[in-house]
Amino acid sequence: MITTDICIIGAGPVGLFAVFEAGLLKMRCHLIDALPQVGGQLSEIYPQKPIYDIPGYPEVKAQELVDNLMQQIAPFKPTFSLGERVEVLEQQEDKSYLVQTNEGTQVRCQVVVIAGGLGCFEPRKPEIVGLEQFEGKGVGYMVKNPELLRDRRVVLAGGGDSALDWTIFLASVAKEVTLIHRSDSFRGAPDSAEKVFELAQEGKINLILNSNIRAIHGNGHLQEVIVEGKDKVQSSLKADHLVALFGLTPKLGPIANWNLAIDKSAIKVNTEDYSTNVERIYAIGDINTYPGKLKLILCGFHEAALMCQSAFKYVYPSQKLSFKYTTVNGAPGF
Amino acid sequence: MITTDICIIGAGPVGLFAVFEAGLLKMRCHLIDALPQVGGQLSEIYPQKPIYDIPGYPEVKAQELVDNLMQQIAPFKPTFSLGERVEVLEQQEDKSYLVQTNEGTQVRCQVVVIAGGLGCFEPRKPEIVGLEQFEGKGVGYMVKNPELLRDRRVVLAGGGDSALDWTIFLASVAKEVTLIHRSDSFRGAPDSAEKVFELAQEGKINLILNSNIRAIHGNGHLQEVIVEGKDKVQSSLKADHLVALFGLTPKLGPIANWNLAIDKSAIKVNTEDYSTNVERIYAIGDINTYPGKLKLILCGFHEAALMCQSAFKYVYPSQKLSFKYTTVNGAPGF
Ligand SMILES: Cc1cc2nc3c(=O)[nH]c(=O)nc-3n(C[C@H](O)[C@H](O)[C@H](O)COP(=O)(O)OP(=O)(O)OC[C@H]3O[C@@H](n4cnc5c(N)ncnc54)[C@H](O)[C@@H]3O)c2cc1C
Ligand SMILES: Cc1cc2nc3c(=O)[nH]c(=O)nc-3n(C[C@H](O)[C@H](O)[C@H](O)COP(=O)(O)OP(=O)(O)OC[C@H]3O[C@@H](n4cnc5c(N)ncnc54)[C@H](O)[C@@H]3O)c2cc1C
Repeated sequence: MITTDICIIGAGPVGLFAVFEAGLLKMRCHLIDALPQVGGQLSEIYPQKPIYDIPGYPEVKAQELVDNLMQQIAPFKPTFSLGERVEVLEQQEDKSYLVQTNEGTQVRCQVVVIAGGLGCFEPRKPEIVGLEQFEGKGVGYMVKNPELLRDRRVVLAGGGDSALDWTIFLASVAKEVTLIHRSDSFRGAPDSAEKVFELAQEGKINLILNSNIRAIHGNGHLQEVIVEGKDKVQSSLKADHLVALFGLTPKLGPIANWNLAIDKSAIKVNTEDYSTNVERIYAIGDINTYPGKLKLILCGFHEAALMCQSAFKYVYPSQKLSFKYTTVNGAPGF
Repeated sequence: MITTDICIIGAGPVGLFAVFEAGLLKMRCHLIDALPQVGGQLSEIYPQKPIYDIPGYPEVKAQELVDNLMQQIAPFKPTFSLGERVEVLEQQEDKSYLVQTNEGTQVRCQVVVIAGGLGCFEPRKPEIVGLEQFEGKGVGYMVKNPELLRDRRVVLAGGGDSALDWTIFLASVAKEVTLIHRSDSFRGAPDSAEKVFELAQEGKINLILNSNIRAIHGNGHLQEVIVEGKDKVQSSLKADHLVALFGLTPKLGPIANWNLAIDKSAIKVNTEDYSTNVERIYAIGDINTYPGKLKLILCGFHEAALMCQSAFKYVYPSQKLSFKYTTVNGAPGF
C-alpha cells in the first residue's frame, strides 16, 4: 500500500501542476493515470502541436509543456502509478481515503483530487472475434512495458503514430514484428511511415497492408491471428501478442460511480476551492464544471492553486496556512 | 481621442495577458499605466528576481516573464499610454465608456478592465520645502522622456536602482547631472554604483553624498536646490530639473471613486466572469477579491480568460461566441 497526503487521479497538465502547488504547502502527492505516460490529452492526442495560450509562452509544443511541468514538480518527488485505472474510492473510519485501481494498487491519502480531464482514456476496440476473451492473455491496447515483449512474436494493428512508433521500437526487441493496417497509407508522421517501409524492405518486420484482423485463436493464451485482405482471402499468423492500437477515447468511466454531483459528464465544484459535494474530494481541470467554466489548461492551473489552499486543512489539521510568494520563499522541495 | 474595444487600466502581467485573450476573440485593447514602463509590480519591484510558480516555467525572472508576455501579445497590436494615471470613468449615452487620465488622454471603449494590481504606483515624496508647488514645473518623480532633459541642469535624488540608472543614462544627455544621496553607500546594483563613482571621478557628474535636499526655490519654475550635509551646513545648487527617485508605493487612488463595491482596498467581483457591480466594468488580478482569492499571477491569467468571454457581448452584441482551441485555430493576430 502506498501512503501519501494527496492522491491525484489523472496525470494531465493540471494534475501535474497540482503537485507543485501542493509541494509549496509541504503536501506530498501520488498520481494515477490510465495511460502509460503522463501528460493527459497533450501527450496522448497532440504532443507535437503548438499551443499559443499558455501565459508567457508565445508558442509551446504540447509535449514540451508536459516536460517542463515534470521538471517544475521534480523537487517535490511525486510518485506515479501509470497504466492503471482508478476504480474505487473508499472512505476510511478516520476519514482518510483508500484509492484502488484495476490492477490492485491501493493508495491511502487524506485528500483525493480528481484531475481526470475528459475521463479515462479507453482504447477503441476493433471488431475481432474472440478479442475481449484474450485481454491480458496476449491481447492488449497499449504497450506499458516493452520488455515483456522481448523475444516474442508480436502483431501490431493500426495506422497512427502509436502503431508506427511501436513497430519501429519493437523491431529490435521482439523476435518477430508484424504490422497490420487496413489501408496502404498511414495517418502517422510521414518520416515514421517511411522508416516502417524501410524496415519492411530490409526484412526486419512484416508489413501487411490493405488487411484487417478477423479473428484470433489460442488455448488459454493467444496463439494465432487470422488476417483478411481486400480480396477476402484469409491467412493465418502465429503470434504470442497482439497490440491493437486504434486510438484511445476518453470516457467518464468509474468516476460516475463515486456519488459526486455530475452535470453533463463533468463534476460540479465550488469555485472557492474547487471542492466537490463530497468532503475531501476535489475536482480540477477539464473534469469539473461551474458557471463560466472554460476547458483550458491555464484555468486548471488556477484551480489547482486554490484547491491546495483548501486541501491543506485535511493534511495539517492543526496548522495555520500562511501565504508566501515563491520569489520570496523559493520552491524548496522535499 | 483614442477609440478601442477594451480599455485596460494597468499594464501589469494580468493586464498584458488580457490583451492576448481579448485578441483571440478579435477585441482590440488600449492599456494605460501610471508607471513609465509595462510589467506592474514585476518590472517595478523585482525585475531580476526569479519566480518559481508560473506553470511550465521551473524558474523565470520577473522581467523575462513580462518580456515574454509582450512578445505573446504583439500580434494583437495593443496600444499604450504609459506614465499616466486614470482618474475618471464616464459612461456615455450609448453605454460605452470614456476613460480619462491625469494628462488629458481620453479613451473611448465598450468595456473597461481594471487590472490595477495593488493600485496606482505613486512616488514616495521626500520632505522638501516647496516640493509640491514645483511639480510639473521642474520637479518630477520619474523620468518619462529623457529627451526633455537634454542640455538641462538636472539634480537627481535617491540611492536605489532608478537613481543610479538615470544618473548614468543622463550623464551623456543632460548639460549637468548631480546625484544627491543621504548616505555614502547605495541600495542599487553594485556595478551601477561603481559606474556612478567612476563618472564622478572623471568629472562627468557631481556626486553629493551624506546629504539631503532641504528646500527648492524658483520663479514659476525650479531654479535652485538647497542641500544640507551631515554637518548641517547648507549649500545652493542651480538646477532646471529635480527628479526625486525615492521609490514608488501603490495606492488604490482614483479607483476608489468609481462607485465600485470595494472590500479592503480590492474590488469585489463575480467569479463567473470577474465582472464588478457596474456593468461593462471588470476587475482582474491583484485588484479584485472574491472567496478563495489568491494574489498570484497565475490566478490573474485565468481571470483574464473568463473575463474576455463575458466582455465579448458588449463589443460584438449581435455575434455568438464560439470557443476554439489555439492549437486548432492558432493566434492569428490583427
Ligand atoms: C486537439 C486539442 C487541442 C487543444 N488545444 C488547447 C489549447 O490550445 N489551449 C488549451 O488551454 N487547451 C487546449 N486543449 C485542451 C487541453 O488539452 C485540456 O484542457 C487539458 O488537457 C486538460 O488537462 P487535465 O489535466 O484537466 O486533463 P487531461 O489532459 O484530459 O488528463 C486527464 C487524465 O486523467 C486520466 N484519467 C481519467 N480518469 C481516470 C481514472 N479513473 N483512472 C486513472 N486515470 C484517469 C486520463 O487517462 C488522462 O490522462 C486542447 C485539446 C485538444 C484535444
Ligand atoms: C516581492 C514580490 C514577490 C512576488 N512573488 C510572486 C510570485 O513568486 N508568484 C506570484 O504569482 N506572484 C508574486 N508576487 C505578486 C505578483 O507580483 C502580483 O500578483 C502581480 O504583479 C499582479 O499583477 P497585476 O497585473 O494584477 O497587477 P500589478 O503588477 O500590480 O500591476 C498593476 C498596474 O496597474 C497600475 N495602475 C493602478 N491603478 C492605476 C490607475 N488608476 N491608472 C493607471 N495605472 C494604474 C499600476 O501602476 C501597476 O503598474 C510578488 C510580489 C512582490 C511584491
